[in-house]
Amino acid sequence: MDYENFFQQQLAALKAEGRYRSFAELERKAGDFPHAVQYLETEQRPVTVWCSNDYLGMGQNPAVLEAMRETISLCGAGAGGTRNISGTTHEHVLLERELADWHHKEAALVFTSGYVANWTALTTLASKLPNCIVFSDEMNHASMIEGIRHSRAEKRIFKHNDPADLERQLKAAPPDAAKIVAFESVYSMDGDKSPIGPICEVASRYGAMTYLDEVHAVGLYGERGAGVAEEQGVADKVDLIQGTLGKAVGCIGGYIAASAALCDFVRSYGSGFIFTTALPPAIAAGARTSISILKKSPELRAKHQERARRMKELLGEAGFPLLPSQSHIVPILVGEARRCKELTDILLLDFGIYVQPINYPTVPRGTERLRVTPSPLHDDKAMRYFVESLRQAWAKVGLKLAA
Amino acid sequence: MDYENFFQQQLAALKAEGRYRSFAELERKAGDFPHAVQYLETEQRPVTVWCSNDYLGMGQNPAVLEAMRETISLCGAGAGGTRNISGTTHEHVLLERELADWHHKEAALVFTSGYVANWTALTTLASKLPNCIVFSDEMNHASMIEGIRHSRAEKRIFKHNDPADLERQLKAAPPDAAKIVAFESVYSMDGDKSPIGPICEVASRYGAMTYLDEVHAVGLYGERGAGVAEEQGVADKVDLIQGTLGKAVGCIGGYIAASAALCDFVRSYGSGFIFTTALPPAIAAGARTSISILKKSPELRAKHQERARRMKELLGEAGFPLLPSQSHIVPILVGEARRCKELTDILLLDFGIYVQPINYPTVPRGTERLRVTPSPLHDDKAMRYFVESLRQAWAKVGLKLAA
Repeated sequence: MDYENFFQQQLAALKAEGRYRSFAELERKAGDFPHAVQYLETEQRPVTVWCSNDYLGMGQNPAVLEAMRETISLCGAGAGGTRNISGTTHEHVLLERELADWHHKEAALVFTSGYVANWTALTTLASKLPNCIVFSDEMNHASMIEGIRHSRAEKRIFKHNDPADLERQLKAAPPDAAKIVAFESVYSMDGDKSPIGPICEVASRYGAMTYLDEVHAVGLYGERGAGVAEEQGVADKVDLIQGTLGKAVGCIGGYIAASAALCDFVRSYGSGFIFTTALPPAIAAGARTSISILKKSPELRAKHQERARRMKELLGEAGFPLLPSQSHIVPILVGEARRCKELTDILLLDFGIYVQPINYPTVPRGTERLRVTPSPLHDDKAMRYFVESLRQAWAKVGLKLAA
Repeated sequence: MDYENFFQQQLAALKAEGRYRSFAELERKAGDFPHAVQYLETEQRPVTVWCSNDYLGMGQNPAVLEAMRETISLCGAGAGGTRNISGTTHEHVLLERELADWHHKEAALVFTSGYVANWTALTTLASKLPNCIVFSDEMNHASMIEGIRHSRAEKRIFKHNDPADLERQLKAAPPDAAKIVAFESVYSMDGDKSPIGPICEVASRYGAMTYLDEVHAVGLYGERGAGVAEEQGVADKVDLIQGTLGKAVGCIGGYIAASAALCDFVRSYGSGFIFTTALPPAIAAGARTSISILKKSPELRAKHQERARRMKELLGEAGFPLLPSQSHIVPILVGEARRCKELTDILLLDFGIYVQPINYPTVPRGTERLRVTPSPLHDDKAMRYFVESLRQAWAKVGLKLAA
């Protein structure tokens, strides 16, 4: 077995298909988001970032940064251990309390990332609950899919955002088996929202617990920013809400919010929670500060939605093929990996606009796209410049616009 | 299905067995390690931490803290995206370069934690390499076990630290199958070291690649602190070295260091790498600063070893049953979950000494223990106080000392 040769062949296959990923090397400038500097081999160039998941710019909020710096000065760099072995700090406890309050749940449990939260919570629940069957929306994120897969529980896929199909499948399952219905509130690549209330009603009718991933919604929807479940007034119908501290909150980390017993169960049995170093206290402090601000910032959320609507409007008027997003996410269909990459290369090199091409396996083949995330910090002038630049790039790669 | 009742029953079972985990809520004081404050319901008390994995106290190193604070001021809180979608910063690139240099490998790849590094790298390699068989040391860490399990590749367990048993098993495997030999350099609960050279020789003879977890060794062993492989002069025989930024480095995060093609392969195919928010740039900056200091600090490593030897000496003279550790880890055998917990409760409440009980599933039942990690910051006076306090607690729970 020639391992090196195998790795090189696999990489060559990605390159041949035009979906080998090159990472843009950036330096974001706190106080000047969405502007950043791109590092090239011999120079640095200013760019505007159009694809960040720091949706509201909380990653440069002065109070968040100050909380982090202060906690570093007070408590040091890392936590120094797993949550069980010397790594639970006062800041972790305060953050979990804040998260439970945010979602009006009894408790919350923090993980090192949203990915690890999904993977650990789903694999722990689905493997331990007796004869568990997981009903999973067909568009669920990789972290949920891997968690379910790892549990080795039976999985049944229901049609995307379709409570009727979910009901057919629940009805056909053994009544006494444990059941988890796993879905998201905002699907990050299409920007559509799920019918949380109807899905929860169906789940409840057949004795299933509900597991809702709100990572692209927390901070952004609802009166206090607790997500789409809050916005739709159905948070109390959801058994477990999973969220992230790495997107609208502007830091890193993930969590679940649920009943005290459920959180304690995952805390006590989840391998991905138990056997890993806790988040640094400064991250917990920064995230908690960010959430306390987000709870009181409906105007920031309104501005965010206004900016996204404006961007869709401008792109739509110019004839670009927008996917029908209901959220702050603005997906522009390209439909082919190589051209998707070419477009973004032109935008970056010729116009200083950074937006990453989204290719398989992140989205299905044939639906390759640009995924644009306008923030409250992207003004009309920047939007017009984006649209005009994209028009030129679009023509250059031989794509046509709608009349 | 009554989910709440199920969770409560499972928790009651842990409590009945005496291995329900209560987390100590701490606040470490930068500049005053290993001292910390414990938060109780109505008061705060000073404690000395004796079980941190911040082995050298790098988590309070002024240069590390300053690098983090500066990067927060310059670049903000979080990375704002996955490594592919706007989350690769200049600091990530510099850190990966520093890690590759540390281990004298072509490249390195950073993950959000050591757990995620093991899980992702092993599952990606073992699931993609054709007909892969993983040969796994029977004492490997949970993150490796879960990664191998998730790959669904065939797994064969070899006897702990036993190249002869490994050879028997390799010999019996199909010659043309891809093979990974996965093991650790320092086993964290016993403190023993593996014979890296002999294991690599056997692996090489049968065409297997070698995967070495050095999380409890990086920063601590070898002329430049690159780990036991460096100390034993065999780093070039290891195909992949996995490490952490969360223990001796004092921050959080994990990595692999290997050939450029191997790192690029995991970068391109690893779900746990691709679909998760990148580490904050300030963490990357802090970790890089820490490593650059560790590379030049043989005297700190010598002091660490001296302190561990001294602690073993004092405990041994007092008649405590030490497990035969070859490293900085000092395990004291108790052998029963409930007493292990009682001992540590007494140490904490009566003496202000914090050491966490280590129970199943972290260690096998019947080998429950205290795991003490003396650092260069624990002086002789603190050690004598620990030994005397433990002597009293030991008697109080009805345990006997050797004559």
